[in-house]
Amino acid sequence: MNKIDELRFREDFHQLSQFGATGDGGVDRPTFSDAHLDARRWYLKRATDAGLQVAVDGAGNHSAILEQPGADKTFLIGSHLDSVPDGGRYDGALGVVAALEVLRTLKDSGIKTAYHLEAIDFTDEESQLIECLGSRALIGDISEYDLQNPPCGRERFKVALKRAELTHHSVLASRRPPDSLAGYLELHIEQGSKLVDEEVQVGVVTGIVGIRTFLLSFLGRRDHAGTTSMANRLNAGKGASAFLLSIMELVVDQYPNCVANIGRMQFFPGVTCIVPERVDVDLEFRGPDETKLDELENTLIAQANDDASRHGLSLDVIPLNRNLSAFMDPRIQQAIHRSAKSLSLSYLDMPSGAGHDAQLLARITPAGMIFVPSTGGSHNPGENARWEDCVNGANLLLHTILDIAKQ
Amino acid sequence: MNKIDELRFREDFHQLSQFGATGDGGVDRPTFSDAHLDARRWYLKRATDAGLQVAVDGAGNHSAILEQPGADKTFLIGSHLDSVPDGGRYDGALGVVAALEVLRTLKDSGIKTAYHLEAIDFTDEESQLIECLGSRALIGDISEYDLQNPPCGRERFKVALKRAELTHHSVLASRRPPDSLAGYLELHIEQGSKLVDEEVQVGVVTGIVGIRTFLLSFLGRRDHAGTTSMANRLNAGKGASAFLLSIMELVVDQYPNCVANIGRMQFFPGVTCIVPERVDVDLEFRGPDETKLDELENTLIAQANDDASRHGLSLDVIPLNRNLSAFMDPRIQQAIHRSAKSLSLSYLDMPSGAGHDAQLLARITPAGMIFVPSTGGSHNPGENARWEDCVNGANLLLHTILDIAKQ
Repeated sequence: MNKIDELRFREDFHQLSQFGATGDGGVDRPTFSDAHLDARRWYLKRATDAGLQVAVDGAGNHSAILEQPGADKTFLIGSHLDSVPDGGRYDGALGVVAALEVLRTLKDSGIKTAYHLEAIDFTDEESQLIECLGSRALIGDISEYDLQNPPCGRERFKVALKRAELTHHSVLASRRPPDSLAGYLELHIEQGSKLVDEEVQVGVVTGIVGIRTFLLSFLGRRDHAGTTSMANRLNAGKGASAFLLSIMELVVDQYPNCVANIGRMQFFPGVTCIVPERVDVDLEFRGPDETKLDELENTLIAQANDDASRHGLSLDVIPLNRNLSAFMDPRIQQAIHRSAKSLSLSYLDMPSGAGHDAQLLARITPAGMIFVPSTGGSHNPGENARWEDCVNGANLLLHTILDIAKQ
Repeated sequence: MNKIDELRFREDFHQLSQFGATGDGGVDRPTFSDAHLDARRWYLKRATDAGLQVAVDGAGNHSAILEQPGADKTFLIGSHLDSVPDGGRYDGALGVVAALEVLRTLKDSGIKTAYHLEAIDFTDEESQLIECLGSRALIGDISEYDLQNPPCGRERFKVALKRAELTHHSVLASRRPPDSLAGYLELHIEQGSKLVDEEVQVGVVTGIVGIRTFLLSFLGRRDHAGTTSMANRLNAGKGASAFLLSIMELVVDQYPNCVANIGRMQFFPGVTCIVPERVDVDLEFRGPDETKLDELENTLIAQANDDASRHGLSLDVIPLNRNLSAFMDPRIQQAIHRSAKSLSLSYLDMPSGAGHDAQLLARITPAGMIFVPSTGGSHNPGENARWEDCVNGANLLLHTILDIAKQ
């Protein structure tokens, strides 16, 4: 039975973890940082050393390619090498190293597949510049308008593109025709505790939650914090704080399948002795079902209006982003099931609470995801996975590719 | 009866308002900004043009001086030319221009006073670098440790000092012996609505509130905002928001003579898709009485601990600054009363809810303050004062100086 090379896989993962290592087990590899660019160079080098072809597209996506004579479509296996600031070393990295290892294993074994295989590292999955820039560009979901109005700010985006030697034109030109693709598969840590809690070896992702983000501005009046009586203030901080507390309760009580987060509040002018005249609130919420998300969105905005007016404030609502929920392809799910059985791995069908590039790829090609158990939460240096689970995941990736693509 | 030159006074105020003018009636003149340094140069030029002496001390305090033959002490009349970012054009500026006008009026009239008179513009009253840097240096309340650990951050402080051509050494050397001073008097807008509400022409300040500032850090756990169930999160934002709401109510209910403000909350890591692991809260509270402030401090810290533990968080408490409350000198208050009567101005004795350089000067010399009515709140471009009230204030300043210092 075909298996990946555990030692080579482990050595790769170890080497990759050094780029941006924070000393506490995590990595700091935000998009186009030095550590991120170094990691990507290392990735191409490892692919070249293995006799694979390499390519970098106009959105900066980095690929190792195993071409198949006579094939006309490409099956993508991917994830991402960027991390959130001070993130963990498994999120994204595991999937890219496993994809590379699958290609090497197939190349070494001489097995032919029906499709070209491409192990792809997507640009900016962690959305430091433009949410899922690489996969969105690949599916053709980026416009010139998006590039002119990046959430990270125009100046920062310009500098970032320059660092990676990209242009608006190259990003827009990196779209791939859907009929050039045969499918997409991604291995990733779960980033939740379900697999560990239920003592299951792998997760088969059934769908990925929709994600919506908003910028809410609570608007009051700037006053001197010593001379203005407490009763006469229009304190924007009160509306924002009341909103945070009310929605945390509301979502738990009324939307058990959804989650919401306020990752940041920014106070203006942000000075100790001035009553805040404006507080900007970054709101994000997720759910598996677009209809439910519509309902939640209405509820949250109504709550924000309530909390604002109760404290004499007004409210500005700016929708920022909307990632549609996505179903994973049933045939790919079945292929994962069959492969797990053949490898004697226990598995569980589950939705993904996190967004992934697979969510975007699913819009133009059959997509699937495999989860391996992880602990220590996610997007933090304490994020962890047992190595035997990672090896199981990589072997399951290999066998699923063989199930789908073996000639 | 001696009066200031209204036209000259008004022209000065108009010219000064151009430095850092924001186009909406306000000024943006934070400490050592270009606009601030330009305004200070203009001030020395106006003083020199009037035949007054000028001086700049090692803390950057800018003075116009009317020397008196035979006098051995100096009576200070002051305020400040710096503003908060995007502040109003009266706060501080009015007092400096009025002090200059008083000196010119006395010089022109040939009246001799028992003390040298010094119209002083204090550095950084608005505390962008180190709270009341100029007046604290003058009274000897700044140490090398303070200069090494400025609230604004060491790098920013270093750059700022360089812009103003100051050094740690020069700041420390700017202390004045208390027996070189005869007193301190300051004209300022009220920054509250009491004088307007009660239709009174001037306020006689009886004392200045004590101000305490703290940095409170609510500490939770950083988690992925999509994969971590709402129930399992340790969301630092919840503790911080609960604290903001509880203290706003608590202070109004239990401490009617005190006020509190949270001018800023900073979320870490501050990313949309990450549950905040830490929220830093800038807390400030004020009250006229140190015993009451001790009690309020205990109540607020206990409340923060409650709010933190209720949400599974821990709490770090860092005291930042404490400005002791100060009583204004009774003899100076009486001199203001007498002068107001002689000018037929209605007056009201009142505490100041805002901190002022007078609070610091009061520690080493008799100090007093005169308020004129203002509207539109404070620390914002809409801050306003009727010009006739400003003229009344300047004439009251002149007559109070004459009452105290006329030979």
